[in-house]
Amino acid sequence: MPLSANNPDRKSWLHVDKNSDFPIQNIPFGVFLTRDDIITIGTRIGDTAIDLGALHQLGYFDGIPLTEDIFLQDTLNDFIADGRKTWRLVRNRIAEIFDSENTTLKNNKKHKEIVLFRLDEIEMQLPVHIGDYTDFYSSKEHATNVGTMFRDPDNALLPNWLHIPVGYHGRSSSIIPSGIPVHRPQGQTLPGDSKAPVFGPSKLVDFELEMAFITTDANDLGESIPIEEAEEYIFGLVLFNDWSARDIQKWEYVPLGPFLAKNFASSISPWIVTLDALEPYRVEGPKPIKPQLDYLKYKGKKSFDINLEVAIQPKGAKETVVSKSNFKYMYWNMAQQLTHHTINGCPVNSGDMMGSGTISGPTPDSYGSMLELSWKGEKPIKMKDGTERKFINDHDTVIMRGFCEKDGTRIGFGEVSTKLLPVYKK
Amino acid sequence: MPLSANNPDRKSWLHVDKNSDFPIQNIPFGVFLTRDDIITIGTRIGDTAIDLGALHQLGYFDGIPLTEDIFLQDTLNDFIADGRKTWRLVRNRIAEIFDSENTTLKNNKKHKEIVLFRLDEIEMQLPVHIGDYTDFYSSKEHATNVGTMFRDPDNALLPNWLHIPVGYHGRSSSIIPSGIPVHRPQGQTLPGDSKAPVFGPSKLVDFELEMAFITTDANDLGESIPIEEAEEYIFGLVLFNDWSARDIQKWEYVPLGPFLAKNFASSISPWIVTLDALEPYRVEGPKPIKPQLDYLKYKGKKSFDINLEVAIQPKGAKETVVSKSNFKYMYWNMAQQLTHHTINGCPVNSGDMMGSGTISGPTPDSYGSMLELSWKGEKPIKMKDGTERKFINDHDTVIMRGFCEKDGTRIGFGEVSTKLLPVYKK
Repeated sequence: MPLSANNPDRKSWLHVDKNSDFPIQNIPFGVFLTRDDIITIGTRIGDTAIDLGALHQLGYFDGIPLTEDIFLQDTLNDFIADGRKTWRLVRNRIAEIFDSENTTLKNNKKHKEIVLFRLDEIEMQLPVHIGDYTDFYSSKEHATNVGTMFRDPDNALLPNWLHIPVGYHGRSSSIIPSGIPVHRPQGQTLPGDSKAPVFGPSKLVDFELEMAFITTDANDLGESIPIEEAEEYIFGLVLFNDWSARDIQKWEYVPLGPFLAKNFASSISPWIVTLDALEPYRVEGPKPIKPQLDYLKYKGKKSFDINLEVAIQPKGAKETVVSKSNFKYMYWNMAQQLTHHTINGCPVNSGDMMGSGTISGPTPDSYGSMLELSWKGEKPIKMKDGTERKFINDHDTVIMRGFCEKDGTRIGFGEVSTKLLPVYKK
Repeated sequence: MPLSANNPDRKSWLHVDKNSDFPIQNIPFGVFLTRDDIITIGTRIGDTAIDLGALHQLGYFDGIPLTEDIFLQDTLNDFIADGRKTWRLVRNRIAEIFDSENTTLKNNKKHKEIVLFRLDEIEMQLPVHIGDYTDFYSSKEHATNVGTMFRDPDNALLPNWLHIPVGYHGRSSSIIPSGIPVHRPQGQTLPGDSKAPVFGPSKLVDFELEMAFITTDANDLGESIPIEEAEEYIFGLVLFNDWSARDIQKWEYVPLGPFLAKNFASSISPWIVTLDALEPYRVEGPKPIKPQLDYLKYKGKKSFDINLEVAIQPKGAKETVVSKSNFKYMYWNMAQQLTHHTINGCPVNSGDMMGSGTISGPTPDSYGSMLELSWKGEKPIKMKDGTERKFINDHDTVIMRGFCEKDGTRIGFGEVSTKLLPVYKK
């Protein structure tokens, strides 16, 4: 199945800004509420949102095996379950419909009125119903930083880390799309000078810069996915802010892992950029430091060169970029993560989400959390408005962005932007 | 809302064995496939399964505000979302319909043919779509045993354990009903004499004797549930076998908790016994050893006296009961668990499941896992067929049962029975 949608020479008859994350080579998938309060599945070219449900009803996907209501749903789960061949047919067709050489829709004013929306006319929703959410811990720099701070600088990485793509289960119910504000969580913490825990608002609310991938139905109970097939089951990626309350985490996490420190909220960008669209941006991953077991060995380029940044915007002030990182720094890639996840026969379904873990780079300005950037609060970060940040303040907005760029084509994720509100009051 | 369904003097016109778990005072809820391959929601009295979808269509629930298709579904989620008042109205009505004094259905042969099934005519399904699954770690005896074996006998309980109902997220996709066999998982382990991990079948597959509760929609993102309201959101309970691979667990679990050691399978009994049906069996819980923070303090009896047992049945042999425990041993009760889970604003939805953690009692014959019963394999358990068990062998069936008994009335859960098969082969 050719990936004609990725043709770098194609232009669209829709206007696309030079630095847009969404040229006609991107064609991400999302779910939005239209100006008529109808929920639909859509895509985006430049700053135009496209109603795929309406396009399908008008016959533009004729010849592709799709059920009638596949895009008239409030999640992408069923479309994702249709599998890679269908995703490709649809993306290729969308590229054709909006190709500058194709006048069919371009010259049909009535159809355009039904199908096209300005961004301010729509409201993005969570793109999938997330059945199960897993978070990995796959950045060596992040694991090393955390181990150095909290355990032993000389043995910062735990013995299993270089052998296992360490991961743990997270909470699906608190995953929200960009734009939904989050309240500062309350909980138990053990202050340094106290013998007993106290209850109150977390004082150390943090972001974690991550990416997450969304899967299709992959395996039945008992079955494993070989590493050479793993990417077949990855639909696409989003930016992911895995909100964390460091003081709650420190007190609760032994021995079963973080729980309430994480599950108060996790934010994702609303457009799922397909793995297909990211094909041109494959790069070599880091060389293994220790030999990896056979089931985790892979061939070819399984890492992706995705530039990432985090900005903090205080209330009423300009934002300050506090971190610049890259998805390619991940020590364990997505194929390894997914294969490891199923090696014991754990079933992976359409709409499951797997987070990368905090993506820290090698230099202090590329760390993916305030914990690391401010080094436990010892080195406050200077903001453009003159204030300082050790962690996130109430009314701060945390914005994450990501994009690939090569040979003049840029494929981006837009942003995940989330405001931290004070503790919830009824 | 009176709980007339619990009237201990009521008899049913359906036959109920003296030692049945399912007298007319129980009225659990489940989902089954009928002899006509139709999926429906049902209940059970004695050894008769009752099709609630058919009963509703025939008008037997007239006057109760229910949607037409509420029982014609493949999960209980929507019915559970209807809330406690509705559950009570339905349970009370079922008790009336099958009361020995009520001849309406009893004398209607045609209706009975539509509504009633022998157990061998139906196939029990997973009763709910489990959105999120959390497992707690709330038995002091279990946490102490594990801490003694793997850490420090003098400080077996970690510092947070007496303050926090410790819990962690689990995997929903691998939760299966009783009767579905499980394959021995493969994975990474670090043998005692090895410097590097090896790959292969787990050698230490274990059960964990747990109970789990199913919730209704409880709170929105940001909101907490006060402890005095928590039980309002608990629909009912099931028996729960939280399958574990101890060797995989030992190597993978630091620092983020167990992952592949648990998510290959978790088995539940198919009938959800309502919290209402368990009302007569409330007992005092253990006295707190250390003061608990205000949000976890409760009044009244929040523990339940539920007798539990685990049996192992080797292939072709008789079963041996290897453990007898009780749900009342739990140090942290369900109200505390649910309140703790939401204290940071984490949303709890209809169909979420929360496991108790392994329920070990104070004596060695009441421990809830082979890890503890055989004390890491140092004290093998003698079986009736002359063999010994340190952990679970291929082709063994693990059976868990539970029931309450008081003043001549017995309310039980039936069983969760699961066979362990060898490693999965395509």
